[in-house]
Amino acid sequence: MHAESTEARLLDGKQISSNIKSKVKGEVDFARNECASFKPGLAIVQVGDRQDSNVYVGMKIKTGGELGFDARHVKLSAEITEEKLLEEISSLNKDPNIHGIIVQLPLDCKSKIDSSKCTNAVSPEKDVDGLNEINAGRLSRGVHLDTNSFVPCTPRGCMEMLKETGLPVQGKHAVVVGRSKIVGSPMANLLTWANATVTICHSRTQNLDQIVKQADIVVAACGQMELIKGSWIKPGAVVIDCGINVVPDVTKKSGRRLVGDVEFAEAKKVASWITPVPGGVGPMTVAMLMRNTLDSAKRSQPT
Amino acid sequence: MHAESTEARLLDGKQISSNIKSKVKGEVDFARNECASFKPGLAIVQVGDRQDSNVYVGMKIKTGGELGFDARHVKLSAEITEEKLLEEISSLNKDPNIHGIIVQLPLDCKSKIDSSKCTNAVSPEKDVDGLNEINAGRLSRGVHLDTNSFVPCTPRGCMEMLKETGLPVQGKHAVVVGRSKIVGSPMANLLTWANATVTICHSRTQNLDQIVKQADIVVAACGQMELIKGSWIKPGAVVIDCGINVVPDVTKKSGRRLVGDVEFAEAKKVASWITPVPGGVGPMTVAMLMRNTLDSAKRSQPT
Repeated sequence: MHAESTEARLLDGKQISSNIKSKVKGEVDFARNECASFKPGLAIVQVGDRQDSNVYVGMKIKTGGELGFDARHVKLSAEITEEKLLEEISSLNKDPNIHGIIVQLPLDCKSKIDSSKCTNAVSPEKDVDGLNEINAGRLSRGVHLDTNSFVPCTPRGCMEMLKETGLPVQGKHAVVVGRSKIVGSPMANLLTWANATVTICHSRTQNLDQIVKQADIVVAACGQMELIKGSWIKPGAVVIDCGINVVPDVTKKSGRRLVGDVEFAEAKKVASWITPVPGGVGPMTVAMLMRNTLDSAKRSQPT
Repeated sequence: MHAESTEARLLDGKQISSNIKSKVKGEVDFARNECASFKPGLAIVQVGDRQDSNVYVGMKIKTGGELGFDARHVKLSAEITEEKLLEEISSLNKDPNIHGIIVQLPLDCKSKIDSSKCTNAVSPEKDVDGLNEINAGRLSRGVHLDTNSFVPCTPRGCMEMLKETGLPVQGKHAVVVGRSKIVGSPMANLLTWANATVTICHSRTQNLDQIVKQADIVVAACGQMELIKGSWIKPGAVVIDCGINVVPDVTKKSGRRLVGDVEFAEAKKVASWITPVPGGVGPMTVAMLMRNTLDSAKRSQPT
């Protein structure tokens, strides 16, 4: 008799995000049947010409097109001033065909532009990245559902992955490592209001290993390659890895590979579920952006 | 030889708040020396005639007067409509002599009024209660200091009390019991951005005792009389009790007494510092309201 394998099941972000995108496409098609002019409009504002931003924006535009969205790339010169950029956002806020606006960060600009000012300039009703302070405030105080507020895409994607496990979140101890505006902080909020007991850890946390060892749910969003060791994972825990760290790898054609914030090979021996990197949280972000934009488009429809 | 007493030192809210108020008064006097017309203006909007609200508002108006503020009680009929109340707030937003506006909750009104709509109608620049979603968002994402945002008075008072202990917050494990908009949630934010590792507990938390036992700093804000037992307190921990529970007591002239959310008598045997109830966090709230209003008045001065 052999002991049963206790290796973690993989949370396949490609598959889960693909299901979400199919559902979004189905809803778009259905809505268009009801009203021929229905078309979710997404504007992606990019300043300058960063290569990584070009790739990310390209993925979002392509996915939007596939799902039947009007996905526009608003590519602006690196020479643009803050004032002009704010005007551009303001005109998108007023455009009735645009339901979602995102400002691709970081900005690649010659003059000094306050990026928070720009993300806050996006109307809360079109803020599909969930970065406007009003949406952040609602989420942090637990009124995001009552107020139809947008939640940042990566944490929303992580919640979808947790749902996929079928395990309850309520009453569980969740440990979030990282407190960024875009992942860690909103993730801690989402888990808190899903009734988990949440511990937020960060660079100043002492005895991180002891804290992670207590977690039923670990969300790694600290941007440090394999900081979270496999030996820290409580047997049976769910591990969600938001890290995307690039390391050189001569065995790869690209000369590099992606590594998460969790020591995957060891962690998967003890966790019940784990997200791989790549192919875990990564693909979820674009899918949730589409979900947020569709939600916005539906809300703007005359009832 | 006797063992040294290890009983907790008391964080005397009356004394600490009195020091803060003296400092505020000194700053008001100094500013008036520089500019004779300087006078922090605080408007407290009360709807209806709840007895408890009358008492709280009275205390705030009285303290404001003592510190040289223009503290106005805007008492409105219980018959007021939401529209009229919003107009009232809007006119206070525009009044250059008013630097702080608070809407006393709960509203005592005949018609249905959305209280969040009212607290959000207060301009973020005059929101000395820190309840506007924009201020909540900034605090939750850690930009409250960079943006001169207001922080709710009770949590700000708790941070002042922690300062009083002289103990570091950074890297410590803080456990906040309660996730209300006005105390628990903003307190967790403040501690996180003061670089503590923060666990937020609430009614759905399992094994609350085990979690509290790990805390270097315990903040009780759950509104349940003596829920936090003395035996849960880690030796040497700092205990901040925001609870104000009224219990009948025939031995008191008033027929009642106030009890906190922590089992004080037992907790003080193991804690290093503890706030009593009454006389702990309670008096801090009004003092911090004055501090917030003074900060606002100073910011509005021509430079």
